[in-house]
Amino acid sequence: MLYFIGLGLGNEKDITLRGLEAVKSCEKIFLENYTSVLGVGTDKLEALFEHPVIVADRDLVESNAEMILDSAAVCNTAFLVVGDVFGATTHSDLWIRAKERNIEVQVIHNASIMNACSCCGLQLYRFGQTVSLCFFTETWRPDSFYERIVQNHSIDLHTLCLLDIKVKEPDFKELMKGRTVYLPPRFMTCNQAIDELLEVEEKYKKGVCGPDALAVGLARVGQPDQFICFGTLKELREVDFGQPLHSLILCAPHTHEMELEMLNYFNVKNLKK
Amino acid sequence: MLYFIGLGLGNEKDITLRGLEAVKSCEKIFLENYTSVLGVGTDKLEALFEHPVIVADRDLVESNAEMILDSAAVCNTAFLVVGDVFGATTHSDLWIRAKERNIEVQVIHNASIMNACSCCGLQLYRFGQTVSLCFFTETWRPDSFYERIVQNHSIDLHTLCLLDIKVKEPDFKELMKGRTVYLPPRFMTCNQAIDELLEVEEKYKKGVCGPDALAVGLARVGQPDQFICFGTLKELREVDFGQPLHSLILCAPHTHEMELEMLNYFNVKNLKK
Repeated sequence: MLYFIGLGLGNEKDITLRGLEAVKSCEKIFLENYTSVLGVGTDKLEALFEHPVIVADRDLVESNAEMILDSAAVCNTAFLVVGDVFGATTHSDLWIRAKERNIEVQVIHNASIMNACSCCGLQLYRFGQTVSLCFFTETWRPDSFYERIVQNHSIDLHTLCLLDIKVKEPDFKELMKGRTVYLPPRFMTCNQAIDELLEVEEKYKKGVCGPDALAVGLARVGQPDQFICFGTLKELREVDFGQPLHSLILCAPHTHEMELEMLNYFNVKNLKK
Repeated sequence: MLYFIGLGLGNEKDITLRGLEAVKSCEKIFLENYTSVLGVGTDKLEALFEHPVIVADRDLVESNAEMILDSAAVCNTAFLVVGDVFGATTHSDLWIRAKERNIEVQVIHNASIMNACSCCGLQLYRFGQTVSLCFFTETWRPDSFYERIVQNHSIDLHTLCLLDIKVKEPDFKELMKGRTVYLPPRFMTCNQAIDELLEVEEKYKKGVCGPDALAVGLARVGQPDQFICFGTLKELREVDFGQPLHSLILCAPHTHEMELEMLNYFNVKNLKK
């Protein structure tokens, strides 16, 4: 049996009772750690599970998935995912490959940023498609997210922007010397995301994410020190959101009265200087 | 302290460890039971919590919320919501009213149908706005959902349709005799939803939810006997989805290859006759 188990967003205690029961029945436990991360280290999970946890990087899940499937073919195996199970494409892939091998699968859901982001007051049913922002480099500045924001905006919907994370990225300078050394993990901040949005708005000028666009920055949703701030992109750009993970929501052109009432509890204007 | 705690979708074991810890610290526990229901009775929750649970109907939450707030002002109080916390508008309202009274609030998230629906294979980031379908009556056939489906369809997005539930609806015949009697709860089935969609498509003819439109019917997501079926509306109309709760997803005009590959595991054509 291969269990796909969502871990939720905060720490080891965000697993469900059913999820924990399933994990406890498993001989092998893999933790996917490259599309998101918990607010605590793997040691906390191992202490709770009383069992070692194998950290599965992108390479293992995408290229060496046989290791996970071989295990699931002979014993109960857990594949743990921060947030919910099917946020990232690769996990459908793993599910399909398990099915192809006639391995039984079971999915145990949990909160994802895709639903938990509603804690800011914006109504979940008013969100359009979700976009992902990647770290821009000198030569690679992909901005296909912009057209999706324009589409959502045109039918008065909010846009959740998921921000890039880079874990276990090889250091190319070292690689050229024949050594494999990994760079420290990087997590895009709301501020960096806003810089990208403003840059791309400047390029296409369709008026969806300029300095005066209303947005909500969210940091560490579901963790004890969760931080939410509502304001214009220009205002939020100056706010310190602290530790990762960050996400950003671009508000629809119209916010409903009830949305605004709740958002105002997080208004940047109320921040203590 | 007022804890807003998501219960997830299946049974009492879908609460998170953190959620359970919070509930155990509470002197009063309210369960919102009118926007969704768990697959088990309140008795199972009470057994797990070792504490009575007060079932809060719409009237209590919307008109008598002071009862909840008064409790939260003096002792730890839990407000339990099936799925995640902020699926339904009224819960933002309760959150705001608690804040107005300077009552501390804490939100503990969980899976919602809004993210768990991705278990069918459709990618979550490709969903547009969510629509709700109400039971049509002779004289009241609201179809504003149709325009939203058209909007999503026009930018190639999936549409999650949430289906009406009626719990604790007064029996008007009895009411006229001066007696308050409640009708048995009713839950819209995928089949009923499809009838409404086909009727409205027939009226506006924009080609978004006719008999050949591709869709996914989901029943009891996250429960052991979860059932998912993928096909055209015409095909799904004839499928028995069993016990509630049901939801329906209208697929975007284009499904991606990976989506289709996973959807096909639920293809109506594979159903054993």
